[in-house]
Parts: sequence; C-alpha cells; structure tokens
Amino acid sequence: MKYVDNRVEDIKIAYVGGGSRGWAWGLMSDLAAAEDICGSVALYDIDYKAAEDNVIIGNKFGDAEGAKSRWNYYATKTLEEALTGANFVVISILPGTFKEMESDVHTPEKYGIYQSVGDTTGPGGIIRALRTIPMMQEIARGVEKCCPDAWVINYTNPMTVSVKALYETFPKIKAFGCCHEVFGTQWLLQTALKEYEGIENTTRADINVNVVGVNHFTWLTKAQYKNIDLFPVFEKMARENYYTGYVKGKDKNWMNNFFESNDRVKFDLFLRFGYIAAAGDRHLAEFCPGDWYLQTPEKVREWGFGLTPVSFRINNLAERLEKSRKRVSGEEKIELSKTGEEGVEQIRALLGLHKLVTNVNIVNRGQMPNLPLGAVVEGNAVFAADSVTPVMAGDVPREIHALVSRIADEQELVVKAAINRDLEEAFRAFVNNPLVRLNTTDARKLFDEMVENTKTYLKEY
Amino acid sequence: MKYVDNRVEDIKIAYVGGGSRGWAWGLMSDLAAAEDICGSVALYDIDYKAAEDNVIIGNKFGDAEGAKSRWNYYATKTLEEALTGANFVVISILPGTFKEMESDVHTPEKYGIYQSVGDTTGPGGIIRALRTIPMMQEIARGVEKCCPDAWVINYTNPMTVSVKALYETFPKIKAFGCCHEVFGTQWLLQTALKEYEGIENTTRADINVNVVGVNHFTWLTKAQYKNIDLFPVFEKMARENYYTGYVKGKDKNWMNNFFESNDRVKFDLFLRFGYIAAAGDRHLAEFCPGDWYLQTPEKVREWGFGLTPVSFRINNLAERLEKSRKRVSGEEKIELSKTGEEGVEQIRALLGLHKLVTNVNIVNRGQMPNLPLGAVVEGNAVFAADSVTPVMAGDVPREIHALVSRIADEQELVVKAAINRDLEEAFRAFVNNPLVRLNTTDARKLFDEMVENTKTYLKEY
Amino acid sequence: MKYVDNRVEDIKIAYVGGGSRGWAWGLMSDLAAAEDICGSVALYDIDYKAAEDNVIIGNKFGDAEGAKSRWNYYATKTLEEALTGANFVVISILPGTFKEMESDVHTPEKYGIYQSVGDTTGPGGIIRALRTIPMMQEIARGVEKCCPDAWVINYTNPMTVSVKALYETFPKIKAFGCCHEVFGTQWLLQTALKEYEGIENTTRADINVNVVGVNHFTWLTKAQYKNIDLFPVFEKMARENYYTGYVKGKDKNWMNNFFESNDRVKFDLFLRFGYIAAAGDRHLAEFCPGDWYLQTPEKVREWGFGLTPVSFRINNLAERLEKSRKRVSGEEKIELSKTGEEGVEQIRALLGLHKLVTNVNIVNRGQMPNLPLGAVVEGNAVFAADSVTPVMAGDVPREIHALVSRIADEQELVVKAAINRDLEEAFRAFVNNPLVRLNTTDARKLFDEMVENTKTYLKEY
Amino acid sequence: MKYVDNRVEDIKIAYVGGGSRGWAWGLMSDLAAAEDICGSVALYDIDYKAAEDNVIIGNKFGDAEGAKSRWNYYATKTLEEALTGANFVVISILPGTFKEMESDVHTPEKYGIYQSVGDTTGPGGIIRALRTIPMMQEIARGVEKCCPDAWVINYTNPMTVSVKALYETFPKIKAFGCCHEVFGTQWLLQTALKEYEGIENTTRADINVNVVGVNHFTWLTKAQYKNIDLFPVFEKMARENYYTGYVKGKDKNWMNNFFESNDRVKFDLFLRFGYIAAAGDRHLAEFCPGDWYLQTPEKVREWGFGLTPVSFRINNLAERLEKSRKRVSGEEKIELSKTGEEGVEQIRALLGLHKLVTNVNIVNRGQMPNLPLGAVVEGNAVFAADSVTPVMAGDVPREIHALVSRIADEQELVVKAAINRDLEEAFRAFVNNPLVRLNTTDARKLFDEMVENTKTYLKEY
Repeated sequence: MKYVDNRVEDIKIAYVGGGSRGWAWGLMSDLAAAEDICGSVALYDIDYKAAEDNVIIGNKFGDAEGAKSRWNYYATKTLEEALTGANFVVISILPGTFKEMESDVHTPEKYGIYQSVGDTTGPGGIIRALRTIPMMQEIARGVEKCCPDAWVINYTNPMTVSVKALYETFPKIKAFGCCHEVFGTQWLLQTALKEYEGIENTTRADINVNVVGVNHFTWLTKAQYKNIDLFPVFEKMARENYYTGYVKGKDKNWMNNFFESNDRVKFDLFLRFGYIAAAGDRHLAEFCPGDWYLQTPEKVREWGFGLTPVSFRINNLAERLEKSRKRVSGEEKIELSKTGEEGVEQIRALLGLHKLVTNVNIVNRGQMPNLPLGAVVEGNAVFAADSVTPVMAGDVPREIHALVSRIADEQELVVKAAINRDLEEAFRAFVNNPLVRLNTTDARKLFDEMVENTKTYLKEY
Repeated sequence: MKYVDNRVEDIKIAYVGGGSRGWAWGLMSDLAAAEDICGSVALYDIDYKAAEDNVIIGNKFGDAEGAKSRWNYYATKTLEEALTGANFVVISILPGTFKEMESDVHTPEKYGIYQSVGDTTGPGGIIRALRTIPMMQEIARGVEKCCPDAWVINYTNPMTVSVKALYETFPKIKAFGCCHEVFGTQWLLQTALKEYEGIENTTRADINVNVVGVNHFTWLTKAQYKNIDLFPVFEKMARENYYTGYVKGKDKNWMNNFFESNDRVKFDLFLRFGYIAAAGDRHLAEFCPGDWYLQTPEKVREWGFGLTPVSFRINNLAERLEKSRKRVSGEEKIELSKTGEEGVEQIRALLGLHKLVTNVNIVNRGQMPNLPLGAVVEGNAVFAADSVTPVMAGDVPREIHALVSRIADEQELVVKAAINRDLEEAFRAFVNNPLVRLNTTDARKLFDEMVENTKTYLKEY
Repeated sequence: MKYVDNRVEDIKIAYVGGGSRGWAWGLMSDLAAAEDICGSVALYDIDYKAAEDNVIIGNKFGDAEGAKSRWNYYATKTLEEALTGANFVVISILPGTFKEMESDVHTPEKYGIYQSVGDTTGPGGIIRALRTIPMMQEIARGVEKCCPDAWVINYTNPMTVSVKALYETFPKIKAFGCCHEVFGTQWLLQTALKEYEGIENTTRADINVNVVGVNHFTWLTKAQYKNIDLFPVFEKMARENYYTGYVKGKDKNWMNNFFESNDRVKFDLFLRFGYIAAAGDRHLAEFCPGDWYLQTPEKVREWGFGLTPVSFRINNLAERLEKSRKRVSGEEKIELSKTGEEGVEQIRALLGLHKLVTNVNIVNRGQMPNLPLGAVVEGNAVFAADSVTPVMAGDVPREIHALVSRIADEQELVVKAAINRDLEEAFRAFVNNPLVRLNTTDARKLFDEMVENTKTYLKEY
Repeated sequence: MKYVDNRVEDIKIAYVGGGSRGWAWGLMSDLAAAEDICGSVALYDIDYKAAEDNVIIGNKFGDAEGAKSRWNYYATKTLEEALTGANFVVISILPGTFKEMESDVHTPEKYGIYQSVGDTTGPGGIIRALRTIPMMQEIARGVEKCCPDAWVINYTNPMTVSVKALYETFPKIKAFGCCHEVFGTQWLLQTALKEYEGIENTTRADINVNVVGVNHFTWLTKAQYKNIDLFPVFEKMARENYYTGYVKGKDKNWMNNFFESNDRVKFDLFLRFGYIAAAGDRHLAEFCPGDWYLQTPEKVREWGFGLTPVSFRINNLAERLEKSRKRVSGEEKIELSKTGEEGVEQIRALLGLHKLVTNVNIVNRGQMPNLPLGAVVEGNAVFAADSVTPVMAGDVPREIHALVSRIADEQELVVKAAINRDLEEAFRAFVNNPLVRLNTTDARKLFDEMVENTKTYLKEY
C-alpha cells in the first residue's frame, strides 16, 4: 500500500467467497468507480471456477464506461494465499447449499413454524449459525496468521454471530459487518417527508438517524431532517396506511425487489411501541413472537409480506448464473451501476481519505449500555484513518428492550454453543426462540431433525 | 424504642392493611413468640372494623400458651396516625376488591388468555399494578412525612412494582419486600436430598442457595448442601418425574395448600435451561410465553397445576371471616403457630439482635449486573443492625436472561406508566406481555375493557 | 428560524457575556464569514455598556471585506430578554473580577502553592468554580424558561463544572462546551510529521485523534495520519527535545501567544506514561502533583512554561479595551480573520447543513466507561441535525487513569458542594487537590482566606 | 473429606510457607480448638527444615490443654505433594529475604522517601509485588493442576496483588485473602462506644460495619451498634484526640504490638473526608501523598506512628526462631490461645457448618461499582457451604474515591507488568505513586537501583 498525495495505490483486498454472483459484482463496480484508490483483489472461493469467472468479469470492470480506476483481479486456490498481505478482507460466503437452506426454512413448517427469511434468527437462523460460525473461526485464524492488521468487512448472514465469532477467535481483529437494511427505512422516511411535508430531493445522508439494536432488528430512536423531527411525520404515515400498507414507488434495486413488503409490520411495531423499526418487514417479523406476524401463511399475506421459499432462491441463482455466463463470454456488456452500498466509502475512510458516519455491526463496547458488553450490535460509527469508532447510541428504549435484548441473549448463547461445538447449549437458545412455540419434547424433535438434515456441515459437533 | 441489655422495648410497628385475616395473624403469632422484643402495633385499614377485630385478636396472642412477649395492638383511623413514630411499617394491603380481581383474572379468558394467579404479571398483574402503585405512593409519602427512618416491609402483590413504587416516591425509604416462594423450592431440594442421597433431617437453612430474578420468577444459580452440589440431585428428580410430576408429602401450610402443583413446570424449565426456577409452578407459568404452559385449561391440568378462580378466593375469604368472628368472640382459642415466615427474624436483625442472610426484594444496586440498575430484584441480602445489604447474586445466566430481563423491563415500564398515570405507556407493556398473544387491535380492546372494569380504582389515570 | 433551500435565516443567537472583548469578536467574524446562515444576535452582559459597544462592532462585521452574511446585533438589559426565542445560546462570562482572580491565583503562593493558570483546578480553580456554578444555574434556569430547545454552547472556565452545573439545573438542556486546547496538540503532531516524516501541508482535520479526559487535561489514546501511527513519531520528538523543549514555529494566534510553553511537560508526561497529553503545558501542570512541575517558580521556568500573573491579565484587558474603543469609533477597521474556533461550524452542523466530528465537553453517558457516568468529559462527538452524539472514546488507559479520575472526582464533588452551597463539602475537594500539599490545619486556613477574599461572589454559601 | 453428622473428618489442608514462625502457629492453635473438623495439614516451605520443625510443633497442639481436635501435620518436599488432594490451601509466604526487604524499605530514604511498612504500596510495595507475583503464579498453577476445587486462603502481602495474580493465572481458582486490620478499627469503635456512650462489653461482631476499599486502605462507610450510628461517636473521639492521639488501652496481641499508633492519621483522615479509615495508621499513611504524613521521620513521630526498620524485623525473627527452638525441644509448653483470626471460622463456613459475614479480599464482581471490575477489593462477604459471596459494598464515597481508585489503578498496572515481566510498565506505576515525589529522571534512578538490589528474585524480568 502506497500513498501518492491523496491517492492510495497497491491496496490489496482479499475477497472470501469471491465466486459470488451478486455482492462481488457490486463491489467490483464500486471499486472501479473510485477515483483515488487502486490495487488488486484476490478472489478466494471453495468453488474455484466461480472465482475464476469473476476474475474475468472483475477485470472487465476496469474497461467499463466511467471507470476511474483499474483493479487487478486474480483467483487463489487457498484462503491463506488470498489473505497474505491483504489490507482489507471482504467476507461474503454462503454457509452451506440450498439443501441446508431448504431444511432451515421449510422443516419448521411441519411444526407450524413459518419463517420469512430463515437466515438470521428463528430455528433456521440458529441452525445456519451453527454451520457458519466454524467457517468464520477459520477465516479469523487465517487473518490472525496472514494479515493481522487488515480491516475485515463481513457481508455474510447471520451477520451478528458471524462478526462475533471473528472477535471470539481473534480478539484483536479489526472487523465489522455491513448491511443496507437501515438504508431502506431512511428511504421510507424520505418518502414520508415528501408525502406529508412536501419536501423533495432529499438524500439518505440528510436523514440523520440514531440506530440501536442488532442486525435486521435495528430501531431508530431519533430521526431528524434539518429542523424536522421525523417521528410525527412517520406516525402520520403509519396511521394512514396501517391497514393497507404503503406501496407507492418502492425501491427497485435488484437485491431488494423480490423481497418487497408494504411496511405494515413496521407500522404496527410503531403503534405498539412508539419507535421506528429499521429493517425490512420480512426480517422484523422473525424477531417477534410467532403469534404476531408469522402465525400462518395467510396471516403473513395479510401483513403484506411474503415467505421467501428456497425454490425461489434456486431459480434466482439460475438467473444469476446465466448472467455470469453472459458477462464472462462478453454477451452482456459490463456497466458501472451505483449499488448504494457503502463498502468502498468505508475503505476510503479507513485509508484516511475522508470521514464517514454510518451504521455498522460492531462489538458493543458500551455504546448501547443496556445490551451485553461484547455482543455485536448495529449502530452508527465514525470511520476515519485506521479506525471505526462507535458513537454512543444509548440505551435501547425500555419499550422495545425486551424484544431486542432477547435476541442478543440468543446470539451470545449460539456463538458460545457453536464455538464449543455444543448442541445441548444450542438447544437452550433454540427452545427459547419466540418462533419456536413448541413444548420441550417437540422442540427437541425439530431441533434434532434440523441438525440431522444439515449434518454435512455440522460434523464437528 | 429502648434497648435494655439485649432486649428492645417500646418498638412501634405500623401495620397498613391491618384488618387482614391472614398475614396479620401470622405476624401476631410470630411477634408473640419472640423473646427479646416487645412494643405496640398500630393497625390501619380502610376497613376500620376489620382493624378493630384484629386489635382484639392481636391482644389475645399475648395470652396464648407459649407467648413470650406481649404487644399492644390498637386501631387507627388514619394512615398518618399509624405511621407517626413507627420504627417498622408492614404493608399488606389488597388493591381493590374481588370485583377487580374477577376482571383481572377472567376477562382475558374471553380472548383465550388463561392466568393461574393473575396478580403479578400477565394482563391481570399489569392492571392490578396500575391500581396498586398509587396506593404505594400514598404510603411512601406518609412514611416520608411521619417516620422517614422506619424500616418498611412489604407483603403486597404485585411485589416488585410495589417496592419499586415506594422507592420512586421516597428515594430514601428503607423498604424491602418479603415472599416465601423460594422457601418452597428449598423444601423441594430437601426432599430430593432425602430421596436421592438418603440425607434426612435437614433444615431450610442448610440449603445454601444463590437466588436471582424477580419476585415469583426467581431462579437458583447455585444450591449446595454441605459438600453436595444439589443441581445433579435435582436433575435426577426432574428426569424421573418429568411426565408425572412429584407429588409426595407436599407442604400443608394453609397459605399454600390450595395452591399446590406437582412441579412439572419446574422440571420442564430445568430441562429447558439447566437452572432451578424457585417459585411455585402457578407463578412460574405466568412469566413464560403463553404457548408453553397456559395455552388452555386442559394444558394447564396436564402440567399439573390449577387456575385459581376468583370464586375460590371468595369462598376462602368467607371461611377466614368466619374464623375471625370466632377468634374475636372467643369461640376459637388463639394458639401460636410457626408460620415459617421470616418477618420477625428480619426485624430482630435490623435491631441488631442477630445477623440473617435471606432472600428479599430490594433495589438492584448492581447485585444482578445484567438486570436494570434501580429495578427491584429478589436475591439474598444480609440483615444486620439498621441495614439490609444485598449480596452479589451475579448475572442472571444467559440461558434464562431473556425470560427474566423481559419481566424486569415490563415492570419498569408499568411503574413509570402508573406514576405518570399514563395508560398509553401501560399499554406498551401490556401488548408485549408473553401471555398477550393478540394482534394490536385485540390487545387494545382487551386492555380497554379491563381498564373500564376496574375504573373505580383508576380514576386518576 | 426558517429554511430556504440549504440556507437558514432568522436564526436567533443569545450571547451571555456579550460584552466580551475577545471571544465575542471572534464569533462575530466567523458568523460574518458563514455563507448559509444568518439572523440576529442578542448580547447580554452585566456590563450593559460593553454589550452596546459590541453591538456597534458586531454590526460592522457585516460590512467587512469578505463578509458573506449579515447578522443583526442588539443588546438586552435582561438575561430573559436575550434568551427568549433563542435557537442557540453562547455563554462566555467572567465569574468575578480581577480582584477575585488575584486571590485565586496568588493567595496560595503564601503557602508555597504555585499555579500557572488558576482557573480550572488547584485551589484557584476550585474557588472560581464556587462562584461560577451559581451563575450557570441562573443561566440554565433561564434557558429552561425561555428557550428549552435551544442548543447551549459554553466557553466559560472552569469548563467542566460549568457544563455540569447546566445539566444539574436543567437536565434536559442541550448543552456542550468548546475548547481549542486539543487543536494545539494536533498542530504539534503536524509539526512532528513535517520534522520526522517530511510530510508537509497537512491540516488539523487530517490528524485523526481519539481524545479522552476532561477539559484542559485531555489525552490522546490514538493519533493517526493516513497509514502513519503518530505515537512513535511523537516519541521521537519527545526524546530529542526532552531537556530543551520544542520551540520552533509556535502558533501566534493572539489568544494563545502570551501563554506559550515549550512542551517539556507534554514530553515528560509522554515518557512517564506513554500517552500524549493534549492541552497546553500550563494547564497540564496544574493537574499533576505539585512536586512534579509547579514546586517553585524556578522549577516552572525549567519546565519551560510561565506562571501567568493576574497583573498581566489586567494589562492585557487594558489593551483590549483600547482596541474596543478604536473599533467602536472606527479608528480601527474591522477585518475578518479565521479564528480557528469551531463554534460556527458546530452551529451549522446542528442545523443539519453538514456533519462534523470534533472534540467537545459533554456529559459522560458511557463513552468513557471508567470515568463517572454523568460527569462532564471531553472527547469526540458527532455533530449533526439537532444532535451532538459522543463517540465511544473508551477507557482512560490504566497508566493515566489515576490522574484523570482524580480530577473527575474533584469536579463532581465541587459541583455538588456548590449546588448545595456547602463550603464543608467544597473543602473536602480542596484538601485533596494535588497542588494543596498542606496539612489539614493549613489547608483550612488557606481555604478560609480564599473564601473570605472572594466573599462578594459567595454570599449564598 | 468425610461428613459424619455435623462433623467433617479427613480434611486436607496444604500450607504453603508452612515453616512460618507466626501465622502457622496461630492457625495450629485455632485448628486444635475447633470441635467439629479434623484432618491433616501438609506443610510446604522452601526452608524444609522449618517445615519439619513446625510438624513437631503442630502435632503437639493436639495434646495441648483445651484442644478439641487432633490434626496430623507432615512436611512435603514439593509444592505439588502438598497441594495434591487438598481441600484448603493456605498461603503465607515471605517473598524474598530481609536483604530485599532492606532495599524495599530503606533505599528510597536516600531520595527522601520514607515508608512506615513498605510491603503494600509505595516504592517498596511495588518492588515487593514484582517478586511476589511470579510466586503466586506458580502456586496458582499448582492449584489448577493438583486441587482445582480447593479453597485458597492467602495471608501473604502485598495482599491485593497476590490474590489478583492467583485469579489471573487460574481464573476458576476459589481464592480470597484475609487480613485483620479492620478488626482493629472495630476495636477502636468499641472503645469509643465505651468512652462516649458508656456502653461496655460489646464484641467485635456487634459493630456492624460496611467496608470498602483495598487491603490496608479500607474505609467504613457505615458503622452501627444496635440503634447507634457510630459516626458521630467516632467524630467526638477524633476531635477530642486530634492533636494528642488516642492511647488508652491498646490491644496487646503479639502480632500488633510492635506496630502501634495513636490513631492520629485516622482522626485526620476522618476530619478531611468524613469517613473512617479502617486499617492501622502505619498502613494508611503510605497510601496518601507523601506530603501528608510521611514527609520526614520527625513528621511521622508527630503523627504518632513509627517507621518500622528492617533491623527490628531481623531482631524479631531471632526471637521467634528462639521460640521455635524451645517449642520443638519442649522447653516451652504449647498452649492454645485465641488468635482473633477468622481463618478456621471461614473454613468451617465453607464446609457448610455455619454462616459467617466478614470482610475479605476478593475479586470485584461489581460489589464496589466505582472500582475496576476484576480488581481485588476488600469488603464484606457471606461465607457459606462452598461459597464466598461478596455483599454489595456500594460505591467508594466520592470524597475518598480519588485516593482509593488511584491505588486500585496502581495495583492493576503492577499485576499486569509483573505477569508480563515488563519493568517498563512497572515503572509507569512506580513513577505515579504518591510517595514517589521525584522527577522522572530521579524516579528512574531509584527504580533501577531497587530492581538491581533485588535482582536475585527478579531474574525473569
């Protein structure tokens, strides 16, 4: 890494899960669009061929119209090779295959448990965590050995336990996790500003929010636009659209649009508790007692969101594979597109090229005093030269603390269980999950079945 | 108050709710049995006649066989009169009548919500709290004015929010709350010692326990008899009796025996989480999600406990009224009986006559670091001359923290709502209660109905 | 206050101590240089004439070359008049006259106690606090009554106790305190970068620092320029210049230049503890045991800084009065000059016009976990629309915690003593101050003498 | 270990430092006097001959008049042998010889630094800590390996850092440290009760105290006898005897009587801060700035205590050696004598034979919220079956927090430095010690000299 005036050259990024047909392309696009940084990107993936395809695609981004920097992409056969000498590490892996995801999401349905996503919490999220955490441990050990000073950016779900596992394994790791769910709520507030205050042309950065909670279950305790408190504005929106949901002009970003909701869950949570939940409804619903939004598929539809079946994800992947083929072959032209993600801006800030305040998943050093110290929480942080410093988000408000604290407890327990490869301890978390409305015997049966279904990835337990 | 060697004379006790036909008599008996203390007891009750009857009964206790001290009982027409100059204040009131209790317990049944007690948490407990807290505020103001240095012992339910309200109103109050539920679990452990280790003739004091949690939802994190760890012993008992419950040789203390259970809930909670829940099953069940133990009256029976109907309480009162009449008239002879309660021993310790370590409800000054500071919690404390000092109970174990922390949040919210006479805030607690498995609209309807039913006592809201 | 696109008009600023011949002019200059804000400034001062003079001067700033906005200045006869309707309140008062300052600084010398400044800590700072805090209480009550939503910016010393007193009086006040001492250390680090790394043309904002401590006794726990850790760079500077001090190219800003030092104290503290003290040496010395730097005037000179006599301050005021006269009469032309202060940038951020991360004095909500919660500490904060959010500065490092924590204790005690108008309690802080190396009897004599000397301002005690 | 009714047989105690001619004999006497426990005591000492002598003496205690139990004493050649299978481990070692102690206490005098004890804090205490901590680490490793469930009772000074080192090395160790200094202050309060209230025949247990602080620098925040607050009583004593000290009827216990003071320091600290310091004046003085009580030997005499020269300790040892010889040979008859120590009572409580509340040195789990978590502090704890549970001592009062917190910081730093064998880090603590009123250069010279003098025991650094 070399500074030339206010440019940085020879940056090395290691991308773990570098065969990705989604996040990886977004990052490639954002990197190519960055003026003042350049270097190389090592792509590591257990599917080496996928990484090789992405080398081809990645290198084409440097030629795309509007590209301002050229990055050198290459694939590596080992994790160590990718990590050695890296200044930044990006983690975006898929823990397991659709077979495991199928079990995570759909096996609980036999017991009357419905999950809209199944990757963060709920029975599916817990089992997924059990297979993800050992992978994170391996990556953290690699970082410790090969690039202990690198900054590590995680995009993998389940986000919270993944980041926590990195820190548990290598306590000095400089890691954080990124997620764009809060952005969607800021967008909703911009919409409300337009609709109820007639203020147009605002940007996300104009919506000053204070974020508390954990990934996918974040809450805003303050939302301000210039001198306008956005809580009463949002309340108007929530009351007017309580029964119908709000459907106008939804974001069409490809990463979101199969995952739409009409925000009824968000409105309901606001009327229940007085705070703005700041993730998509599909995620929010999974953190609440199963009686609230996920009782039956019919109820789910009434609440204006969908249960994403794994079959959909399989189809979606097929489309993305096809897209990859076309991009490699040149049938499809590579074009830069703004992803709205902040990864590259965060990298630039860590290099000391600017300062940035944004929400991020990071260890609780006290910024949320009534969540456990050492847990991973999501809140704002200041990104600056070689530092990510959380801002004092403050206590999770009493009204919603029980909901949020519960999940933090679950996650702490799951990480401990996974690190100890202890299924009994994992079951203690599972049986207390708010979607698992089963007696102890049935809960155990479901747990055992889900573990059995995914045993390929749970051999160490 | 006057010390004569190691005796204390002229102690003044104010008994608020002094017309009680239960607790009051127990205290009278224990006071008469105490050798080294004597004085007077002012009985105050909104039912003045009941207090007068208890004056007659109380004074008879001094003549009972085995009585070792004579206390002078008298009734007062005002709270102030009772409190003025008191060294100790006992609070044991009934917040409202059976009419209100009827609504607390049975109105939610229309919405499919069953409560086994309905006085601590759940919809009934929350509404009961709303009418109790203003009464506690009035008493606290009286203490501040008339006897700010007195020690205040509360027996009223809901215990936690009652004690909290005392402190919120008069922060320098020296108050704590007593409950015998943990004693029952110690008794169960004695039973297990006998059955599985063949050790007989133990006393409750031999069972060294560490208590965490809140009243009626306490947990043991350690239970030791001499060099024997009682957790594996209890585990044997739990596994052997999981499906049938344990029914041998139950305690026949009149205050408990209509309220029996077979401890299946306790066994189930132990198998779920690995810790010993330390209250009666009827109470424990109410703090858990409604899906676990209180789904339907049938499920409740399967779990081996009963839903206590208010009609039963009405009958029970009739019996106690009759007993009162006979005691006043002399038809029934007054006899001392060991209550097993610790109130008098606590009073003696506060007077500096001995030291005592026991569990008590008291403000969290940090003794349970992962429950809110300032919340009222139940754990061990050292009673000594003019001091009740909590022992460091330690964190609520992660496995059960979500369950316990949730109720602490609810209670903090309810106290705040009640003190501000703010029904909206109270509803935020209500709608998040784990027994209230309703959508927002229905929850609101139920809440409004219960408030309406008990409005006589909620005029200030 | 009115938003017109990205400009804000009709802002009202209340300036308490508006007759100031220093800070006030700096603010006037910075306000005139701001493009996107304008409005009016109410000047309130117990010296009404001084405020009137500043009205004349203030209004001339709008005509100065380079002025980009015009502010309307006016004097008010009462505090309330100034505060009513204010959006921002600036506090920059002098608590007492030179007579009191004379006693603060020089009376302790009779007991062998030397102070380089005497306005923050030490016997002088404590006595000064006793007369300042009641003034702050009055202002806070005014804010509560007249403009409870206004942002309050304090420049008055003693800074920490002043801000704390504002919060103690009106807990919902939105107040913070500004001080430029850290800037000087950032400048020193820029100098070190130039000298030891050959890197020129850096700006203060390029020096990314983490600040912990309390005003005038702040410490850097991290200092980074792009990818360069500045601790080893500073260590070189400290070792090379340990005996001589560093004197090249000092800042000539009028507010500092009579107050120079050669940074030997800073170097010594670095070698002792391994952290960079981030205020001027004159301030730093006063927080350390009297044996270290302030033993005698000779020792002080050896350490490369001066004892600022009050006579100097009297002369300096005379010069500033003359300057005021000339500015009012027009003999001296008003010119804009960059003050380097951040007040106006902070105001713009609070209005939502940009974001700013800078160090500020603010209540410890947990951002410095090993300093008392609720104490006022100095660290970085994010300024954004209607919010100042501290960043997690983290623990004060163990090596220096004893030094810093001690002063936080002293300040907490002094504020409590002052609010209770309790001289006995104030003495408990005084007798434990590290400069007061006296036995209890002599310490009491000195304390009584200093109180007597300043009794005009201590009538309420 | 075997329970027979309420007796425990076959207890194994390991005594590390078992050649002691002081503490060991006291423990032997107390063990012999205990009715309900018996077993064996393994004596391990680097001076094997001394341990052998103590075997002879120890076994004679069983024959002494009034002995109620017989313990089997034997010497071991290795630490492991002593520890294997132990139920209790007593640590009472001397870290180094009089040569090292000579340097600890007297080398600083060359720099004008006087120490009254020199074993706990001050330059001597810090250097002594550096050689003690590695020994404690060795013992802790032995416990982990040979008897991980044993209770470990430390009597070695420096107490705080010794206990901390045990926990740092083996976090699950069940260790605490005992010291009788608080007892002396309770005795002084009994004296005050007699003198000012005419109350005689009280026992130490009657004086209900709340203890905060660290070993040898403990403070009482509450002292109560029945209904009498002892603070005003002590204030009378302090004021009346401020200039003369209090000298009537001092305790003649052999372990104390060469170490007398007239309590002037205690009185002065009370008048300064309003709290009762609860250790001997010789210890208290060493924790305060050197200007207060230890400026010169003359000042020390004025303050009514003595500087204990190492020559005295050498003479004293000679006397004890002679006493040992006589006891071994039978020239001196073994007699039981009440030591006033609580070790045996603590052992009985840990065995579940009774409950005990007393002050003890133990890890801060939050019982003193404003001292560092994890530091070793001294306060009350409940001793019961297999548990030592601290009581919530509460915050160190603000008035004295700076003094106490400082030493906690020093101790934390010293332990870290010693464990890392890092003299640079140790110096950071040394240079900030309140007795070390030297510039950095001289402090370094003194430090280096003291390290050099004691290098035999600092080889690992």
